[in-house]
Amino acid sequence: MSEPTTIGFIGTGIMGGPMAANLAKAGHQMRVWNRTPDKAHALTSLGIEVSETFQQAAEQADVVVVMLSSGPVCDEVILGPNGLLAAMKPHSTLVVMSSIPVETAQQQAKAAAERGIGYLDAPVSGGEKGAQAGNLAIMVGGEVATFERTSTLLQVMGNPVHVGPAGTGQLAKLANQLIVANTIATVSEAVLLAERGGADPAKVREALLGGFADSTVLRAHAPRMIANDFAPGGPAKWQLKDTQTAIALAKELSLDLPVTSLVNSLFTDLVAHGDGELDHSALIRELRRRNEMPLD
Amino acid sequence: MSEPTTIGFIGTGIMGGPMAANLAKAGHQMRVWNRTPDKAHALTSLGIEVSETFQQAAEQADVVVVMLSSGPVCDEVILGPNGLLAAMKPHSTLVVMSSIPVETAQQQAKAAAERGIGYLDAPVSGGEKGAQAGNLAIMVGGEVATFERTSTLLQVMGNPVHVGPAGTGQLAKLANQLIVANTIATVSEAVLLAERGGADPAKVREALLGGFADSTVLRAHAPRMIANDFAPGGPAKWQLKDTQTAIALAKELSLDLPVTSLVNSLFTDLVAHGDGELDHSALIRELRRRNEMPLD
Repeated sequence: MSEPTTIGFIGTGIMGGPMAANLAKAGHQMRVWNRTPDKAHALTSLGIEVSETFQQAAEQADVVVVMLSSGPVCDEVILGPNGLLAAMKPHSTLVVMSSIPVETAQQQAKAAAERGIGYLDAPVSGGEKGAQAGNLAIMVGGEVATFERTSTLLQVMGNPVHVGPAGTGQLAKLANQLIVANTIATVSEAVLLAERGGADPAKVREALLGGFADSTVLRAHAPRMIANDFAPGGPAKWQLKDTQTAIALAKELSLDLPVTSLVNSLFTDLVAHGDGELDHSALIRELRRRNEMPLD
Repeated sequence: MSEPTTIGFIGTGIMGGPMAANLAKAGHQMRVWNRTPDKAHALTSLGIEVSETFQQAAEQADVVVVMLSSGPVCDEVILGPNGLLAAMKPHSTLVVMSSIPVETAQQQAKAAAERGIGYLDAPVSGGEKGAQAGNLAIMVGGEVATFERTSTLLQVMGNPVHVGPAGTGQLAKLANQLIVANTIATVSEAVLLAERGGADPAKVREALLGGFADSTVLRAHAPRMIANDFAPGGPAKWQLKDTQTAIALAKELSLDLPVTSLVNSLFTDLVAHGDGELDHSALIRELRRRNEMPLD
């Protein structure tokens, strides 16, 4: 797929906007749709057409990319007699890059197959910065052939890796989110131990960089914990939703994940104490509460 | 301290050997001592003198570096009427780079001060590779002035960061070890979720690199978990000793660290099941046991 492709792009918000822009800059023919048209119109300077309905954005497309906010919204737009799948050409490909439940992705893949349409679930990690820079981590589930004919296009947005059949892209995203949640809890405990033991936590963090304890969380989130600055970023309530989804899926799979379960309960308490809108690194506040330490 | 310094180096094993070699290559005058003299004699080709007793290695030195294996051994060599402190010159500096208890470091610092000798506790992270490459993470506790006059010398071995008063270097090392232990547990759970959900765990790991879930453990330890290859590396029994020490110190400080406590109990079970000699990444085996999954 080094040829320019006709792409329908559904959902041009904080993430979808820069992702669509990068596809346009790579020379692809773009029709986009967004529920709030203003956000889509900002893209017209790149030669992107804005459609009035998502069906119009999809009907000529070889590939339709969906970057809407949640599972139910995705289902509403994709399925049903007036949905995307009904509007799309046979032999075209639907790539759902939203983070949605594993089961939802599996059902969408089935519905797509029934209409002779290829399907990939391809959620991302890396945030707005990654979307702009075109270096998102992209976790892809679906058939190998569908992945192979779409991977050059996905590479415009980041680093796509095929991890298994439909739904496993979402599974990988859950694995990603559970690691982030648990690492935030872990680094919080290390910061508190350093602080309570009389070290300078900022210096301890600096000393640990480059060693076996290094992580993106130590680099990006620990400074917020130490500075007590919890402007989001990724809000704690979303992180809780992710750990809840991971725990629920693990339960379905009869899998006991003790550390994730514990961290899920810590995020539950954090949100119950009214900190759900703060950045997820604010989990350190919940550990401070447990230890009757001052919060500010 | 850009001038060549006379250094006594005590303990030239797997870590100490390459550290002493790097100091010699940087032009410092070295006298070394090792309990097993053979390991020390390998260094003579670099112009390093091998002393018959540790007192001889120390008595002319401006700086004495100790890289012995444990707290009790360190105490035995450092304290007492025939110890290093008794042999060292006034105004010289003792740098203890072994990982020892916080309290032991504080007591050694006090004993050094009573004899007018400077003291730093400066444990390291990064293993044999880091020691050879001279890029160890070095976590330093002690007086600022002592750190400042020694930091150029420490930079030959890695990246020294001063984190607080005597003992806090060891505290930072515990924070480091706690993060490593918890991250191993976390990545283990992510690998099991990916596997049980039908994804290719190696591909999921690859997909997560560069995103918010990235860490040294994901890069270095996850491949061992996935390949079921647990040749150490750092054995699980040492990791357990570290989490036990971290929990004990937290208790002294009246600090509840729930995630570290849970991971400590997982490592306790792992060692109880006879896996203490395996690499610490073998913690995934304990989670497999809990979930009645096959171990091989």
